[in-house]
Amino acid sequence: MTPRATPHRPQSTQRDLDPHLGRYAQRTVGMTASEVRALFAVASRPEVVSLAGGMPYLPALPLDQLAGELAQMVMTDGMAALQYGSAQGTPELREQICEVMALEGVRAHPDDVTVTVGSQMALDMVTRIFCDPGDVVLAEAPSYVGALSTFASYQARVVQVPMDDDGVVPAELDAVLCSLRAQGRTPKFLYTIPNFHNPAGVTLAPARRGDVPQLCAEHRVLIVEDNPYGLLGFDGQIYPALRATDPDNVVYLGSFSKTFAPGLRVGWALAPHAVREKLVLAAESATLCPPTFTQFTVSRYLAQHDWRGQIKSYREAYRERRDAMLAALAQHMPRGCRWTRPAGGFYVWLTVPEGLDTKAMLPRAVTQRVAYVPGTAFYADGDDSARNRLMRLSFCYPTPERITEGVRRLATVLEREFELQRTFGSVRSRTMPGPQSPCPDTA
Amino acid sequence: MTPRATPHRPQSTQRDLDPHLGRYAQRTVGMTASEVRALFAVASRPEVVSLAGGMPYLPALPLDQLAGELAQMVMTDGMAALQYGSAQGTPELREQICEVMALEGVRAHPDDVTVTVGSQMALDMVTRIFCDPGDVVLAEAPSYVGALSTFASYQARVVQVPMDDDGVVPAELDAVLCSLRAQGRTPKFLYTIPNFHNPAGVTLAPARRGDVPQLCAEHRVLIVEDNPYGLLGFDGQIYPALRATDPDNVVYLGSFSKTFAPGLRVGWALAPHAVREKLVLAAESATLCPPTFTQFTVSRYLAQHDWRGQIKSYREAYRERRDAMLAALAQHMPRGCRWTRPAGGFYVWLTVPEGLDTKAMLPRAVTQRVAYVPGTAFYADGDDSARNRLMRLSFCYPTPERITEGVRRLATVLEREFELQRTFGSVRSRTMPGPQSPCPDTA
Repeated sequence: MTPRATPHRPQSTQRDLDPHLGRYAQRTVGMTASEVRALFAVASRPEVVSLAGGMPYLPALPLDQLAGELAQMVMTDGMAALQYGSAQGTPELREQICEVMALEGVRAHPDDVTVTVGSQMALDMVTRIFCDPGDVVLAEAPSYVGALSTFASYQARVVQVPMDDDGVVPAELDAVLCSLRAQGRTPKFLYTIPNFHNPAGVTLAPARRGDVPQLCAEHRVLIVEDNPYGLLGFDGQIYPALRATDPDNVVYLGSFSKTFAPGLRVGWALAPHAVREKLVLAAESATLCPPTFTQFTVSRYLAQHDWRGQIKSYREAYRERRDAMLAALAQHMPRGCRWTRPAGGFYVWLTVPEGLDTKAMLPRAVTQRVAYVPGTAFYADGDDSARNRLMRLSFCYPTPERITEGVRRLATVLEREFELQRTFGSVRSRTMPGPQSPCPDTA
Repeated sequence: MTPRATPHRPQSTQRDLDPHLGRYAQRTVGMTASEVRALFAVASRPEVVSLAGGMPYLPALPLDQLAGELAQMVMTDGMAALQYGSAQGTPELREQICEVMALEGVRAHPDDVTVTVGSQMALDMVTRIFCDPGDVVLAEAPSYVGALSTFASYQARVVQVPMDDDGVVPAELDAVLCSLRAQGRTPKFLYTIPNFHNPAGVTLAPARRGDVPQLCAEHRVLIVEDNPYGLLGFDGQIYPALRATDPDNVVYLGSFSKTFAPGLRVGWALAPHAVREKLVLAAESATLCPPTFTQFTVSRYLAQHDWRGQIKSYREAYRERRDAMLAALAQHMPRGCRWTRPAGGFYVWLTVPEGLDTKAMLPRAVTQRVAYVPGTAFYADGDDSARNRLMRLSFCYPTPERITEGVRRLATVLEREFELQRTFGSVRSRTMPGPQSPCPDTA
């Protein structure tokens, strides 16, 4: 049978807005750009102080030197650096990654490292190999918005475990695990950011670094330890990784985005051997191989450059910014606000007084030329009025002067919200947490 | 409740080989490395002529010039190139991609282009947004092994449509579509490689470039057009893309892997506007953003370099290799062998006489220092003894002399197989097609 000469094209229907509407997979439900995303487009204007994004402060990098090293790399290794490579990543970089992780007490073999396109891809691959739709994943409350978005795209059910100033609370974790066990459910893994948490700005206390792996082992729950900020402790302290405590039950995710540069998108997963095999096969079907070129770039950088000194420069730049933010918060924030005091990383987690709503007031804040991320973005589901009082402030990118000015503007916005509240009562936003929210860390 | 002091660790069980065995997602079933993969590790030794891999011939690239351009890029644009970027890709590169596609008659807006980590990631994202487990995807028979592996990882059911020397056969496509319609099933899309097919080495005839989109439109089936080799036609002819015929019903996948360099992993999807929005959101949850650094590298290359001239150099290098392979096949292949005569791209598709089994004989071929990919790798399911007679020979990477020598060795292997067959009868392999097979294109 040959094709008919006059085919019937589909008639004009309501579907004309998106003629493919009936075709999408279930997992795309809720995969829509939020209104907050549009707002961030405005927030990227230079007159706005953005305390929203998670972009590292790259002027600390010596571009001249990098340019020379890179040209040299192309001259000597160009044929290999521009060619396909192994799905697992180059052997040289995997060895170097083991040296980096050794700083955190991790003893690992390069065979168990899989290089990925940023640690975001590692997270995507881990979720891909472990999660069927409906599977439970544990995460901290709040948790990294990019992780929540990945879990949602695999239709996992996220159960969030409360944190305090010392990180995830073991008793709460135990309660959640026991409650799930009573329902006959075993979570596929606990996703945790032990150091300089995004967004909460807290760090898992040393005593809990035994408790959390122990609880997970008891309940036979794998740990996915995400540690992009571990080397960015402002007093230079490096906490031992959970992976160092329980090598067989932890998948460790690392990244060069914060210690070198995010535009290279070089991250990794260190996984127990059997898991690693599945990770590599999944990664191969996702991208064939991570970019060889950026892997060679990172290898060259680690081999030729004082990368430890560079991390020290970053630490100092971020400490100065953290100090500026904490000083400005202490000086300007109205009574009733609380915030975390991060010992490293990029973020402060701010709680505003009852009756205010950080999402509802965001457009007004942007009008006042300051931006932040409303706290609801960091929760997977459910509505909880306490969450409307939360926001993430990042101090990684703007100068200390801009941070001070941004916090001052934010304080003005809060004062006006109090006035609005006194005049009109509370203004509540519709809560659209999780995957509908933006992933602001790259903005 | 606090953690108990003496936790019970899991007892030693059969699971000790992989203590995580009970935890994996359904989609990992069948996600195991094949024995063929181990064989390819041997095949990468220098004494073996590998006609298996799909690595481009990069010595055609001028490294000195690239090194200089790259250093300049880091000096002038380093801050942006090393920073996070948009999940959709940089605006400059998306504009340049539209210029590249214009060569194939594609009129596109940069807003509808999504840059991905190689076109493999584009394929992964397209499958992610369209395919629920059990959904039907159409592909050519045979089809690109990396696509089959991606479809398998989303638990899609692949139905393959026969091809002839003029590409996919419209009458066969119509028959498959009608048969599926009779079963009440609508495929999510037809995945097709119209130009210089991998692995079949054939090109969709001009007359069929109207028929195939027309049939798909009639049956309301989206087309995913994968076109990595379109600019590598040996006589310089550039075929119009299917996307040029039906912009609203085609997702076009492109790549710089074959026209510039695969180690950069820069590919793209051009999609109808509504689809593009979902693609970007899916890509953001997969990698946050494609590497900014490699995008700037490609942009610089396209802006500063005679990229059309470079493609011409590639075409000439591959034409010389294709000629060497066809001449050697004509000279050495035993009677009863048939093969395709590609007008572009990287691959020849060889059929050996009845009774021989290309998978069973692969270890013996590697012993004779020649490697290829057995045909069964390019089929998603089912067993068909005719497939055991197929193999893919690639001419992209070795020198013409090595290709000639490789084909000579292969002919010797085939002669010995005839002897074995005369002595012992047919030797059949277990057929393990599809996802268990290696993705040899990066080897």
